[in-house]
Amino acid sequence: MKHIAVYGAGSWGTALAVLMAKSGNSVALIGRNDEEIRQMNERRENLRYLPGVVLPQPLEPTTDLTRCNADLLILSVPSHAVRSTARLLRPNLHPNTLIVNTAKGLEEGTQKRLSQVLKEELPDHPIVVLSGPSHAEEVGRDMPTTVVVASDNREAGEKVQELMMTPKFRVYTNPDLIGVELGGALKNVIALCTGIAEGLGFGDNTKAALMTRGLAEIARLGTVMGGNPLTFAGLSGVGDLIVTCTSLHSRNRRAGVALGQGKPLDQVLKEVDMVVEGVRTTKVAYELSLDRGISMPIIEEAYRVLFEGSDPKVAVSNLMMRGKKHELEEVAQIALAQRTLDK
Amino acid sequence: MKHIAVYGAGSWGTALAVLMAKSGNSVALIGRNDEEIRQMNERRENLRYLPGVVLPQPLEPTTDLTRCNADLLILSVPSHAVRSTARLLRPNLHPNTLIVNTAKGLEEGTQKRLSQVLKEELPDHPIVVLSGPSHAEEVGRDMPTTVVVASDNREAGEKVQELMMTPKFRVYTNPDLIGVELGGALKNVIALCTGIAEGLGFGDNTKAALMTRGLAEIARLGTVMGGNPLTFAGLSGVGDLIVTCTSLHSRNRRAGVALGQGKPLDQVLKEVDMVVEGVRTTKVAYELSLDRGISMPIIEEAYRVLFEGSDPKVAVSNLMMRGKKHELEEVAQIALAQRTLDK
Repeated sequence: MKHIAVYGAGSWGTALAVLMAKSGNSVALIGRNDEEIRQMNERRENLRYLPGVVLPQPLEPTTDLTRCNADLLILSVPSHAVRSTARLLRPNLHPNTLIVNTAKGLEEGTQKRLSQVLKEELPDHPIVVLSGPSHAEEVGRDMPTTVVVASDNREAGEKVQELMMTPKFRVYTNPDLIGVELGGALKNVIALCTGIAEGLGFGDNTKAALMTRGLAEIARLGTVMGGNPLTFAGLSGVGDLIVTCTSLHSRNRRAGVALGQGKPLDQVLKEVDMVVEGVRTTKVAYELSLDRGISMPIIEEAYRVLFEGSDPKVAVSNLMMRGKKHELEEVAQIALAQRTLDK
Repeated sequence: MKHIAVYGAGSWGTALAVLMAKSGNSVALIGRNDEEIRQMNERRENLRYLPGVVLPQPLEPTTDLTRCNADLLILSVPSHAVRSTARLLRPNLHPNTLIVNTAKGLEEGTQKRLSQVLKEELPDHPIVVLSGPSHAEEVGRDMPTTVVVASDNREAGEKVQELMMTPKFRVYTNPDLIGVELGGALKNVIALCTGIAEGLGFGDNTKAALMTRGLAEIARLGTVMGGNPLTFAGLSGVGDLIVTCTSLHSRNRRAGVALGQGKPLDQVLKEVDMVVEGVRTTKVAYELSLDRGISMPIIEEAYRVLFEGSDPKVAVSNLMMRGKKHELEEVAQIALAQRTLDK
């Protein structure tokens, strides 16, 4: 029996804790809110974040940080809290504790990927990233789900695959840590954009166009930053993009819809009342596109709508009215980037 | 002013005729059903296939085949009717008439792409293929839409781009005719599969997994057949896949849902009462995967469900229970295929 710790008792942390407990592991689900943890112990349900899913017996909700001293520690906190969480938990870790990060974002200011942040804070621990199309609500209900784990450390990735895979939760490995992290972070920006289009009253054609061309932007930037172009066509790229852009569960999409309906950003964030990762990520992605000189017209329009008060209608019409293009122009750009990297 | 002919007065043919007429072209919308054509002329609406969309004045519904004698002839018939339609129309074409095919499928028996079929039947005409995420219902209502045109003949492709592009209908060009055609045809099989998963009661995670892994299968087969892997990440690949798998407009998806709910294929096809391209294409795709020795587990399960009476539940569990996999295994396969092609 393995000892698993999950830090962060939101919907995704809880769903993963339930999954691991059902597989016969001993699981500590660590949260910070005394009252919520007490309630979970009493009701065997996370009423606020994952209602309707029973917490099986080998799952122990707790506020005890020393329980991080496990074989595997799954981090499930918003991306802006990853660095401070790593610092908080560091004294409690066993030297061999494997770290699995599930947050999706880029650090504001430093523009770093979250595995880089964790590597800095927990240099002695193998870092694995878990990503892919996986709404917590559905994993909690045993809906067939596929995810990908990525790591610089192949052995660590395969160990996580071994530990987490079940007949309903299929885990692939991918050595392309950069591509997996960038796909997971950047798709939230595109989900905001498709939400905006929906809020403006546009249909499936428009959303599919934004998703496809948005994916091309992600792949362009991601490849220049060292990712494998094919990762963006995989579970952590297009797979996660699809689920985030089309599902009602997605906060990024819902925030976008409200923006498209003309509500100001402040009010939208208040109404959603959970972290909307895509807002912060839009800022970092826009900065990266400028730094790297990559054309990212969708990300640029999203930045203008979110931070410069642009009219979403104007943004869509700007995107539709660009000059005539060749669809595979970016191929040349990607190939060029690859050659630069290979040197 | 250009003379445009659209053959096939279904929903897509009508939507494209409306689009071209609004751009100031003279458009003949050619159908075979006297009564329907008479009604369209009288009501200025295609009540059966595109209700609610006004047919603008320069659009003339007609049964007169000699009107195919145009600058541009758009073919909008089911894929199994492409060869017979080309034969039927051939005597009426002007020597310079550009042909644009919008059907998506592969010919049963010969396994040929539709541009190959058209090339055989109309060897003197430039053939262009139009594909991408574009529900007729939305194009008819001026929703922002992006499509791609592909041709072996670059000049012909750019001419079609020039003629068809509007502020609401963005046309990209792509020289990869093979990739564009295969993506458009094979995505219908995946839409059937995601429909089946939906009919079984599964959620967004399962659908996204099928779409992503299905796209990987399409890219594997498509690359071996000579397509550019990046085309499958574009509008005619993932873009069209998304719109077909997630939209209520899609017949392939609706047919899949009914199959997942346990209805037999015969009854489903009767209920949908329009051509469900994905059924025929599943058969051809399965044969191609065997001929070319490409692993296509989703296509294989779809074939078993459709033609061998397999239980859809068993099919999903077969897919989830395959051995542990490395997500980018197919990268090696694609690279190998590419090298073989380059030789």
